[in-house]
Amino acid sequence: MKNVDGAGMEKVLLEFPAQCRRALEIASGQHIAGEFNRVLVCGMGGSGIGGDVLKAVPGSRVPVQVVKGYEIPASVDRGTLVMAVSYSGNTEETLSAIRQAGSRGARVVAITSGGELPAMADKIISVPGGFQPRNALGYLFFTLARFLCNSGLADIKDIDFDETVSLLGETGSFNKAGRELAEFMQGRTPVIYTSDSMSAAGYRLKCQINENAKHPAFHHTFPEMCHNELVAFAGMERDSFAVLMLRDEGDHERVRKRMDICKGIFEKSVDVREVWSRGTSFLARIFSLIYLGDWASYHLALLKVVDPTPVEPIERLKKLLL
Amino acid sequence: MKNVDGAGMEKVLLEFPAQCRRALEIASGQHIAGEFNRVLVCGMGGSGIGGDVLKAVPGSRVPVQVVKGYEIPASVDRGTLVMAVSYSGNTEETLSAIRQAGSRGARVVAITSGGELPAMADKIISVPGGFQPRNALGYLFFTLARFLCNSGLADIKDIDFDETVSLLGETGSFNKAGRELAEFMQGRTPVIYTSDSMSAAGYRLKCQINENAKHPAFHHTFPEMCHNELVAFAGMERDSFAVLMLRDEGDHERVRKRMDICKGIFEKSVDVREVWSRGTSFLARIFSLIYLGDWASYHLALLKVVDPTPVEPIERLKKLLL
Repeated sequence: MKNVDGAGMEKVLLEFPAQCRRALEIASGQHIAGEFNRVLVCGMGGSGIGGDVLKAVPGSRVPVQVVKGYEIPASVDRGTLVMAVSYSGNTEETLSAIRQAGSRGARVVAITSGGELPAMADKIISVPGGFQPRNALGYLFFTLARFLCNSGLADIKDIDFDETVSLLGETGSFNKAGRELAEFMQGRTPVIYTSDSMSAAGYRLKCQINENAKHPAFHHTFPEMCHNELVAFAGMERDSFAVLMLRDEGDHERVRKRMDICKGIFEKSVDVREVWSRGTSFLARIFSLIYLGDWASYHLALLKVVDPTPVEPIERLKKLLL
Repeated sequence: MKNVDGAGMEKVLLEFPAQCRRALEIASGQHIAGEFNRVLVCGMGGSGIGGDVLKAVPGSRVPVQVVKGYEIPASVDRGTLVMAVSYSGNTEETLSAIRQAGSRGARVVAITSGGELPAMADKIISVPGGFQPRNALGYLFFTLARFLCNSGLADIKDIDFDETVSLLGETGSFNKAGRELAEFMQGRTPVIYTSDSMSAAGYRLKCQINENAKHPAFHHTFPEMCHNELVAFAGMERDSFAVLMLRDEGDHERVRKRMDICKGIFEKSVDVREVWSRGTSFLARIFSLIYLGDWASYHLALLKVVDPTPVEPIERLKKLLL
């Protein structure tokens, strides 16, 4: 299950575009029939990020809600389609959530590589095993998105699969830009900012820095941070923190203006690096930031001389929870 | 509008229970008639926290969603009741959001002390002006909650207003416990953990530390943090970070177990302080943590010898945005 050196993680990153393409093939032709008034994505950590991306796709006619925990909202009923995403198929929070969903009459579709989950679902989308869950994002998200598009529950307009996978294929340039970002972050705590709509890319990067580089990192969004966290920069030191702004031309005009002005305020206290998304469709743009961040967190691990793959505290916690 | 010393903020904190009681009187007898299938709370910063609290109240029959930004979900329609919370009544994100909501046929109720908002709403709940927005949480939340209870849109079962206001009346003990927490946090960056259901109390404390103490602070939730941020503790130093766990007996049994185990993992790298909620109803418990945190952030400002009241970078940003 684990790779033991940087080469293992590098291989996974290089093969990520192929993983996304394979996921689209797996979900091709799969769908669910029925009248649903909302989609609930249940998934933790790397398995939950896909739900965050989906929720942010503009123009979705069916509301998407993401549950990262044991319990589902009281309002879940027969009209809710539950997408249970658990790479291992044994994530106890997700199993608990779909048990509740089943008892409310909701239909459950599982995306998983195995475990206990398939026996509890009405429909199963199987993805290949053998990865760390966070390294299976391609399998987990692209099956989810294509399945919902096939089922008429996600709007294909802003989800250009071909553009996205083709853009991610430029691995060399993402690798290089990721290394530069890692050098910028090294030795300091990164504070990552995105717009609300690019939030999943910021949260993904924060988590990847935590897990790959075993390093603290935090994330907040615009415009909300303008109402609170902005004031904290008066108490932040250049040696301790560094700001990374993940920017997108598709962000609301006033959000872009806020980010421009705040960059100047941040720079009085800490160093700031901006990176811009690439691509045309929403999906390509957000995945260009996700893939860049994945490379950056990998390179930060190498700079810190830590093995990017194992996440020992998570494994220890799981054993202690038994 | 601004108080210029610690005494001003202390007065606001001492009078907070009375503010909550006054808010309940203001909203008494006010309601909206109609069939709504969900509630959307639009509000930024201190005006948005009330929506976060409301969303977390167990057993709500009508889904509550919180929007902190310019745009509302594509699925908002005539069946959505929009609660626009803006203390100043001029928050541009909230005005933009309700403009969109109005064009979709949704009805809008404003909670505000003035500004442009009243002219754009179908119904207005007026609260007294003259506070910093974050200091008006009592007015903003308790009017919101009572109004929705009166309208049959929130479940009164877990919202015991009398217990909550009576518990908050023990100002001396909250003040004392807040001072102890501030001493614990001083000189380090607090990382605050709560369960998902107590999330609003953790986020409020993070924001209050930012705004009152002009100090960095971050917040994440259980169980989600067990899948990523937990690994970062391998790279965190005792001199730089300190963990604050806001605990609640009402948390899911497995969440409580996770928090117990993780405390031991955190302590290998950083100092940890746990504080427990007080009270019986959900509302009393979450507000006991919020009020404690408000005092703690105030005392942290005094320990740092900064004026807790002004938030100069927020004011500067607003001017630059004109």
